Amino acid sequence: MEYRNLDHLKSFKILKGSKPVNIKSELNEERVDTYEMEAGSSLKFNYAALPVNDHIITILQKLSIEQDLVEKFKLILSGETMNPGEGRKVLHHLTRMDPPSPVMFKGKDLREFYSEQQDRINIFAGKVHSGQVRGSTGKKFTTVVQIGIGGSDLGPRAIYIALKEAVGKELMMNAKFISNVDPDDGASVLSDIDMETALFILVSKSGTTQETLANRDLAVRWMNKKNSDLNPAKHMIAVTSATSPLAESDDFLDSFYIDDFIGGRYSSTSAVGGAVLTLAFGKNVFHEFLKGAADSDMKALEPDIRKNAPLMDALIGVYMRNILDYSVCAVLPYSQGMARFPAHLQQLDMESNGKSVNRNGDPIDYKTGPVIFGEPGTNGQHSFYQLLHQGTDIIPLQFFGFIKSQQEVDIVIEETTNQTKLNANLTAQIIAFAKGSTNVNPNKNFAGGRPSSLLYGEQLSPAALGSILSHYENKVMFQGFMWNINSFDQEGVQLGKILTKQILSGKSEDKTLLKFASKLKI
Amino acid sequence: MEYRNLDHLKSFKILKGSKPVNIKSELNEERVDTYEMEAGSSLKFNYAALPVNDHIITILQKLSIEQDLVEKFKLILSGETMNPGEGRKVLHHLTRMDPPSPVMFKGKDLREFYSEQQDRINIFAGKVHSGQVRGSTGKKFTTVVQIGIGGSDLGPRAIYIALKEAVGKELMMNAKFISNVDPDDGASVLSDIDMETALFILVSKSGTTQETLANRDLAVRWMNKKNSDLNPAKHMIAVTSATSPLAESDDFLDSFYIDDFIGGRYSSTSAVGGAVLTLAFGKNVFHEFLKGAADSDMKALEPDIRKNAPLMDALIGVYMRNILDYSVCAVLPYSQGMARFPAHLQQLDMESNGKSVNRNGDPIDYKTGPVIFGEPGTNGQHSFYQLLHQGTDIIPLQFFGFIKSQQEVDIVIEETTNQTKLNANLTAQIIAFAKGSTNVNPNKNFAGGRPSSLLYGEQLSPAALGSILSHYENKVMFQGFMWNINSFDQEGVQLGKILTKQILSGKSEDKTLLKFASKLKI
Repeated sequence: MEYRNLDHLKSFKILKGSKPVNIKSELNEERVDTYEMEAGSSLKFNYAALPVNDHIITILQKLSIEQDLVEKFKLILSGETMNPGEGRKVLHHLTRMDPPSPVMFKGKDLREFYSEQQDRINIFAGKVHSGQVRGSTGKKFTTVVQIGIGGSDLGPRAIYIALKEAVGKELMMNAKFISNVDPDDGASVLSDIDMETALFILVSKSGTTQETLANRDLAVRWMNKKNSDLNPAKHMIAVTSATSPLAESDDFLDSFYIDDFIGGRYSSTSAVGGAVLTLAFGKNVFHEFLKGAADSDMKALEPDIRKNAPLMDALIGVYMRNILDYSVCAVLPYSQGMARFPAHLQQLDMESNGKSVNRNGDPIDYKTGPVIFGEPGTNGQHSFYQLLHQGTDIIPLQFFGFIKSQQEVDIVIEETTNQTKLNANLTAQIIAFAKGSTNVNPNKNFAGGRPSSLLYGEQLSPAALGSILSHYENKVMFQGFMWNINSFDQEGVQLGKILTKQILSGKSEDKTLLKFASKLKI
Repeated sequence: MEYRNLDHLKSFKILKGSKPVNIKSELNEERVDTYEMEAGSSLKFNYAALPVNDHIITILQKLSIEQDLVEKFKLILSGETMNPGEGRKVLHHLTRMDPPSPVMFKGKDLREFYSEQQDRINIFAGKVHSGQVRGSTGKKFTTVVQIGIGGSDLGPRAIYIALKEAVGKELMMNAKFISNVDPDDGASVLSDIDMETALFILVSKSGTTQETLANRDLAVRWMNKKNSDLNPAKHMIAVTSATSPLAESDDFLDSFYIDDFIGGRYSSTSAVGGAVLTLAFGKNVFHEFLKGAADSDMKALEPDIRKNAPLMDALIGVYMRNILDYSVCAVLPYSQGMARFPAHLQQLDMESNGKSVNRNGDPIDYKTGPVIFGEPGTNGQHSFYQLLHQGTDIIPLQFFGFIKSQQEVDIVIEETTNQTKLNANLTAQIIAFAKGSTNVNPNKNFAGGRPSSLLYGEQLSPAALGSILSHYENKVMFQGFMWNINSFDQEGVQLGKILTKQILSGKSEDKTLLKFASKLKI
């Protein structure tokens, strides 16, 4: 298997020489049907309004073959290490699907290990739901509070928000999240819950995350202050790695494990998401979610780009980033439930592919991951869409839509439901961005030619959300392969941590740093 | 007063020829003190880590004079119309400060008009708080629900979230917000509140906003279904313009007015923010907030760029956008309370300055408003900071920090409080971005040279937040002047609305549009 930089690939040079597509004139009825494929559990990916045609898609297919994208995915599934020299496998897929052959590590079958952890979570959650496991004052647990940051927060939180209303009356426990080291974050959540019925989950793979340990201590002291009968150890479980200082501690009711092969931003389908979501929703909902993810993972193994939605999405993304020079991508769910999903995708994409050296550490001469941002529609229409329509930069858009609302509480006004109005807006936006509109008043002129894609399904169900998650994880992975970078490390977060420690321990001698710190009375 | 395109200005040509500043080598202890100024109510703007030096600042000062930035602000305050031909004044400043001389319209002093509306809100809120005005079943109102979208939602919601914990036990009413036409948004909020004690505020300047009317109807039907004794008209007030179809309707307990001279995204200090925030916090808190905004507005009148923080911020922003070619700006509050403030600033900036024609409607040959995005720190550090540190694009950063937390509930771990840890992180990031760090391992190498600024204060108080709001409004205004665009319209949102109506009324004959609509079962 060869690992080459994007600009060393023959197909990339051909792509560079290809004639750009004018989406304004090319988008038509036929394309809307033909530029579409299955993307997982009742989910479809429509790329009719992206700036490609059959010719460019053929080159993208060649690019995919030349860079061995699907083969590299298979290597990942087989437990091949990603970082030359580092020896770290990338196994988040195994939290939800069987690999082609068992991935063993120190005599352990890792697919089995991840499944076992989820089985243990299911049993524990069952005991909590039935009242067999209770708080230290004898009350049933009603609220689960996840303490974690980054990947231990964004994904699980976005998924909880997205599925809470779908689960509806069958919600087993409310979930809350504390992440920021800002003490106001913890204080807001802690003051809002009954400590006697609260079960905390401490989530940190390393067991050393500054923010998470600080918030654990804040929660413990809050409990002690609130009620001296409360025993914090009977109100807390841990999700961590078996080698972390938190593992098998008496401070917890129980511990569930991940390992070094599950990256934080890829951990939603591991115990990191599994514990809180199973406690909140019950094991069946989380099982459906995993199944949706596995369905889409299978699609990512298909070599034909027209049958592999994340591959198509990834390659068109690379085309827009490296040939058309677009540096930002907006993620726009037409579903209020997905309100925090853009924040999760922002981490997933930007932390994975915001890199400037290739997997060997050599500098690269092309752009990598774009900036990702977004808010739900129609809200965004009344906010930043002005710039998307008439600003001086072109920003590709990723829309999400669902035929039915989650709660199916709706009304008819002027012959249409609000859900229909929502989707009419979504449709109108795709066309408005692509086709524009000419007006004698230049202020009312829309140049068009602004590309978008649409991921859509029947309803925002657990399975559909799992599919969406997998689609993105695999899209980001394929783009990382394309750029020949390591999408599974995050060395860029280290320097800030080192300097923070220097400040806090009084060991820094950098006068500029100390001067800034003094401004904030440190 | 002349209105010229940026690239026609003599100083801009000089700026283009100026030697770029290497912030990595130039940032030092001295700059941290000297590149700082007052920015309003106990708020300071530090620009030591932005890529300018005295020479460039001198050119920016000339640019400001050549384009008459402060003079143009004065014209706005005096009620001059901004759009040639349109006749629309831009008067949001008058909701919080006295103009140099009265601004009259149809015989009405508009400063007085806005103040009167706030006085009326104060009286009404007092009656609600005292229980003199009650729900239709005789219960005291405890929750206020704002129904509005865009500017009627983002600013008031961000401010409510930011000040709720500061107000703490003195909170008069809880506030909730419904914005999205997605019926799941309304259903989630409505199912979470007691209708008998809920007071709704319907906010729409035109009185015709699709989403807002749809959600009003959803709320009314919900009330009717919940309890036939409930009279929706006794549970709803309106904030609208005097000429809207909603004005003086029997459907409301009372109505409060804005007018056409207060743009949606600039309406937080008008009745749009005033009603919900006064009901939630009481009149004194909102008064302090307005005072903070007025304090910063006064600073924006200062011709000396070194004494006018929004002017300095605006001009360095233009320098980074048009000379250094940075297309995105990240907004990073180190304060959980400000969690939704980036979303408000995103609208404020992108809807104001995402334009491609100048105020006369002529195309322009330079970039205008950047993409704005952000999340609170330290959360973002564990998410997208990887790309900010090591990605292939340079993205300028706007940090916010506060010496004290809002709730002052904190703990000491390893000799420092969580608030100190928060601010140590903030300090470390500024230095890490600017200075970088060289490492033999290229994965751990940080190029540095990544610019940032810092707005900081004692505590996130109502006055400080008002100052921050004003700082940004005026920064965006100065940038709009600089680019010679109209920052106060939003024609880019219209096309989507037109196409949506065509779909919903069955009048569209665009086959591509109809094909897309059919995918979503419309």
